[in-house]
Amino acid sequence: MPASEIERMIQLLARLPGLGPRSARRAALALIVKRESLLRPLGEALLRAADAIRPCTICGNLDDRDPCGVCADPERETAVLCVVEEVGDLWAIERAGVYRGRYHVLGGTLSALDGRGPEQLNIARLLERAAVPEVSEVILALGATVDGQTTAHYIAERLEPLNVSITRLAQGLPVGGELDYLDDGTLSAAFRQRRPA
Amino acid sequence: MPASEIERMIQLLARLPGLGPRSARRAALALIVKRESLLRPLGEALLRAADAIRPCTICGNLDDRDPCGVCADPERETAVLCVVEEVGDLWAIERAGVYRGRYHVLGGTLSALDGRGPEQLNIARLLERAAVPEVSEVILALGATVDGQTTAHYIAERLEPLNVSITRLAQGLPVGGELDYLDDGTLSAAFRQRRPA
Repeated sequence: MPASEIERMIQLLARLPGLGPRSARRAALALIVKRESLLRPLGEALLRAADAIRPCTICGNLDDRDPCGVCADPERETAVLCVVEEVGDLWAIERAGVYRGRYHVLGGTLSALDGRGPEQLNIARLLERAAVPEVSEVILALGATVDGQTTAHYIAERLEPLNVSITRLAQGLPVGGELDYLDDGTLSAAFRQRRPA
Repeated sequence: MPASEIERMIQLLARLPGLGPRSARRAALALIVKRESLLRPLGEALLRAADAIRPCTICGNLDDRDPCGVCADPERETAVLCVVEEVGDLWAIERAGVYRGRYHVLGGTLSALDGRGPEQLNIARLLERAAVPEVSEVILALGATVDGQTTAHYIAERLEPLNVSITRLAQGLPVGGELDYLDDGTLSAAFRQRRPA
């Protein structure tokens, strides 16, 4: 029977996506074997992240400063807003290196099934940001899922009265695919081929 | 681009067995979302484990005390030693609840390929422990792999001069296993080791 400290570590590791009880035990053993090179640095990194990382009050990105690095960067275009579901999608777009504007993280999609309505998402703030005169385009970079497209449709309708062009990513996203899992090339192509919503 | 604290966390998580760069990113996001219920507790648990967990100087088990809980337990039989490759194997046997003796963790197997000889394993200490008069049986609970069986053979030879019986785990059908799905080696072993019904 593992000691209580190991047991506790295994229980918490098993709650990570992608790790079950069995792989959590393997991970715990690997950590203990690499005590000073992995276990302690990871523990310290997690606590530093717990203290430092917070959502950006402007766009919802996660960063160690507020406004986040993207919002605070004077080099980024202010005329374009890219709306994404989750921070992981923002990271994926940044990795593709195809976009130089700002972001807006919704925090999910509308979902009748999960009972998520517009007020659960970061939509009101998006409408405020899109109403600023210098914003000329809002890119709806949402997943090609039913919920993603429903959300895109809803937001497009709400943005309609504003003086902005509303675009979506080009078809090229695999049907049912989530942005976070997309390869850089496909993601770049989808950005270049975005069209009016 | 994730902040440096997130980036560091992702890099370290990606070094866990079972997590690649992509799943490490998902895990990092899941951790940040559950900052107080998962991220901080996991960080604290890892640091506590880094401070507290060490190998038992008697058997090689990992525990927050030395001798470990098994070695220190007066209820455990002292007449039987169960030799395992790794601490994870010890945990598996403890979960099965089938064994009430002591353990000896080798720290791996002999391996010509990886250049691991007897002096790299915790074998000398095993011979000392098995030589104590009250020990009457040594169970070689090593994997049914080439390296595991080579190691078992080597240890059995070294134990030969001592007054202990040397046993191995039976090979055969896994409980609930169907013959149709069994590999040839296991099926052959199950046939060879058949016993009266």
